[in-house]
Amino acid sequence: MVTVHWQGELIFKADTPTGSSLMMDAYPEEGQKSKGPTPVEALLASIGACSAMDVVAILVKKRQVVTAYRVEVEGVRAPVGEWPRPFLALTVRHILTGKNLEPDAVQRSIELTDEKYCSVIATLREAPKVESVWVIEEA
Amino acid sequence: MVTVHWQGELIFKADTPTGSSLMMDAYPEEGQKSKGPTPVEALLASIGACSAMDVVAILVKKRQVVTAYRVEVEGVRAPVGEWPRPFLALTVRHILTGKNLEPDAVQRSIELTDEKYCSVIATLREAPKVESVWVIEEA
Repeated sequence: MVTVHWQGELIFKADTPTGSSLMMDAYPEEGQKSKGPTPVEALLASIGACSAMDVVAILVKKRQVVTAYRVEVEGVRAPVGEWPRPFLALTVRHILTGKNLEPDAVQRSIELTDEKYCSVIATLREAPKVESVWVIEEA
Repeated sequence: MVTVHWQGELIFKADTPTGSSLMMDAYPEEGQKSKGPTPVEALLASIGACSAMDVVAILVKKRQVVTAYRVEVEGVRAPVGEWPRPFLALTVRHILTGKNLEPDAVQRSIELTDEKYCSVIATLREAPKVESVWVIEEA
């Protein structure tokens, strides 16, 4: 369970089961006060890191020498002015630099994260049931 | 577009369009080296903060006095040992403390984020198309 704590303004601090924390904030035009990513940015970041983590682990097992690696995540959202504004499509672009990287090994590692191992991508494709509940406590 | 940069080990730094950054790392049992959240934790955090941001903004407009607020996000995943392991269901639990908070105002704010404004929840329900592509650059 991840718990998100309100910090005032539109700033939130998430505490996670592994003892990590993550600050998030609104978009600048909505009154961003800190340097925390927005929740939508954190969503895209989670997709990229989830997938990249698998790729690095698989390429190490395949004895590939990766010297630099970045993943660009971008998407197409529903039109401005309509609500909600979900992402309708997302592209995860892996840019790998290395020494004699084998294209087949890279392709296979990306197929494996995309189709099998990345739980964030799998969750997006699953369309999980999301339920919101609430409790009011008197101050 | 969010870009996730590999930092060595299984550590990744995401840079976002609003100039923010976010570190992520593996689970402790997979060799976590930093205190960054895992990508799955970042996903849950993004859901909670996205929804909470709407609720705070709506309750301020409704002149409600919120003194403390946290959101717990948890889910049910596909069984261990099978891959992929998506979340099949997620619960977003809002715990609000305030002065004479009106239950109807709280309920309405949560309905609005759940059904209309939270782009992260809407994306999860949308089941967006996710495409992975790659480029290899020689060192």
